[in-house]
Amino acid sequence: MADLRKDPVTGRWVIISTERQKRPSDFHVETVTTKGDTLCPFCQGHEDKTPPEILAYRNGGGWDVRVVPNKFPALRVEGDLDREGEGLFDRMNGIGAHEVIIETPHHGQTLATMGEPAIEKVFWAWRERVLDLKRDIRLRHIVIFKNHGASAGASLEHSHSQLIALPIVPRELKEELDGAKRHFLQRERCVFCDIVRQEGRDGTRVIAESADFMALAPYAPRFPFETWLMPKRHRSRFEDTTPGEFASLARMLKDVLQRMNTTLLTPPYNLIVHSAPLHDEPGANDFYHWHVEVMPKLTRVAGFEWGTGFYINPTGPEEAAEVLRKAKT
Amino acid sequence: MADLRKDPVTGRWVIISTERQKRPSDFHVETVTTKGDTLCPFCQGHEDKTPPEILAYRNGGGWDVRVVPNKFPALRVEGDLDREGEGLFDRMNGIGAHEVIIETPHHGQTLATMGEPAIEKVFWAWRERVLDLKRDIRLRHIVIFKNHGASAGASLEHSHSQLIALPIVPRELKEELDGAKRHFLQRERCVFCDIVRQEGRDGTRVIAESADFMALAPYAPRFPFETWLMPKRHRSRFEDTTPGEFASLARMLKDVLQRMNTTLLTPPYNLIVHSAPLHDEPGANDFYHWHVEVMPKLTRVAGFEWGTGFYINPTGPEEAAEVLRKAKT
Repeated sequence: MADLRKDPVTGRWVIISTERQKRPSDFHVETVTTKGDTLCPFCQGHEDKTPPEILAYRNGGGWDVRVVPNKFPALRVEGDLDREGEGLFDRMNGIGAHEVIIETPHHGQTLATMGEPAIEKVFWAWRERVLDLKRDIRLRHIVIFKNHGASAGASLEHSHSQLIALPIVPRELKEELDGAKRHFLQRERCVFCDIVRQEGRDGTRVIAESADFMALAPYAPRFPFETWLMPKRHRSRFEDTTPGEFASLARMLKDVLQRMNTTLLTPPYNLIVHSAPLHDEPGANDFYHWHVEVMPKLTRVAGFEWGTGFYINPTGPEEAAEVLRKAKT
Repeated sequence: MADLRKDPVTGRWVIISTERQKRPSDFHVETVTTKGDTLCPFCQGHEDKTPPEILAYRNGGGWDVRVVPNKFPALRVEGDLDREGEGLFDRMNGIGAHEVIIETPHHGQTLATMGEPAIEKVFWAWRERVLDLKRDIRLRHIVIFKNHGASAGASLEHSHSQLIALPIVPRELKEELDGAKRHFLQRERCVFCDIVRQEGRDGTRVIAESADFMALAPYAPRFPFETWLMPKRHRSRFEDTTPGEFASLARMLKDVLQRMNTTLLTPPYNLIVHSAPLHDEPGANDFYHWHVEVMPKLTRVAGFEWGTGFYINPTGPEEAAEVLRKAKT
């Protein structure tokens, strides 16, 4: 018998469909490998093939992390923000920013194989760009995300993440904020802190835990092996994180990606940093809790999901957590 | 410069990113063909390979449309609906129904190539199953959808659609209902009727029009060439449609699919029927308006979209409508 489960924050229901259960190896869609590319614009020595650099962490003659504008940006910083109605419809022009964070100078490296200090530098670059863009008061929200592997939407194989700064707060985040606020108003507690506490006691959905972070399979996951990295300390924004926590997050992320690689044969994945809007009302710190969501790309999203916003997931989070917990790292 | 646009019903924002603009032929991911399959469980003569039939429209010795339970159902009708809390979390067991509508006895036929009377019979089968399942008061909503082609999630190539009956109203529909209700409370008019009127006057996003239906590229489409078939007569539920309208819808759907096939090289697609919940409050008929959404599967949905519920679409609806309007049928 399938299980219908509701995410306590967004109110999103999912079907955990045990009838369709699969073993981890049945999911295999793509093993992400780097073929090597002498023309790769992200490799050390090819710096002239990207648009002019926004930020770089240098080391002697080379660099560890580089940030450049996206060559085909979805949004641009130049110009004024014009809002306009067209009868029933609303539009504004595409003010924002779209940047690429080149995570390593080496073509064959990934966040699962890089050293922890190198991964930590990626977080510092994310943070530095957010703090800079935040000064632009037209911008309301910044999404940091990563598409790893062709099936996850990556068009270049060299390890990189992206950042999109938006003049609006997107719907998914708005729903999370609303849900978290509802919980807070009722109970004077952060719903994510409550989740971390309950999951810690229960244990069945915990994948790994350290002093600062808990990696868990969420109660109502949309996708098989969906994994959230939850900071244990309450904080609404990624960019307010301390140096010690970044080191801790680097260790936890590397650990989780290695577990996925051994169990799911180096799968493609999407990673998204969830963080509060840039200029939220005072006190927002009390109800929203930043975190990282990692979704291995193992299944196709089809018509039913598009039509309903309701996901059918063949793997229960308890089973996924057990597999990942026992995986070699 | 990109355009940010807001859907007037759901409040969903999209980026129409002209920087990334592509011609229709650049999108080519898959041309859906039927390879033929002597073992296909949906072909005439293989009726013993499906679970026992729920409904069939017979003709002499054969049949035109058959409905069977899904062999690996996401939900089942048997049992009682148990609702349960687990600390912060909510769950219920998977009560519902999951059926497959086999649209034609012939392996090589599709909704674009079948005759209009044959397509109309598919709609009658959808309607008949909805009216039957509706008598089960545990069920709140029925989603009728179609995944056509492997990239759109179809696991069998023989033309078929599916129906999932749910004990909850899914989030996407809830948002549509809320948005439509908000509009109605403000203006005493159906937002979809307003859209049909405004689009009819404007014309730039209209793909085709008949006495009963308008095919249009929505103002804020999530995907390139996304197309909505809007009934001109206000009605909240698909199943309340009249025979004449079904004939008209068959004509319009075939026409739109043929236009997509010539322009986009017989693309994979998802089709979803949007209709009011089964047992909604009296007066719901005034604000919600059923319709059909067709989304050719031409692009990959990546991390940014998952993280934000916010879509980047490289093709503006005005351009998509123009291409489809001029396409050969």
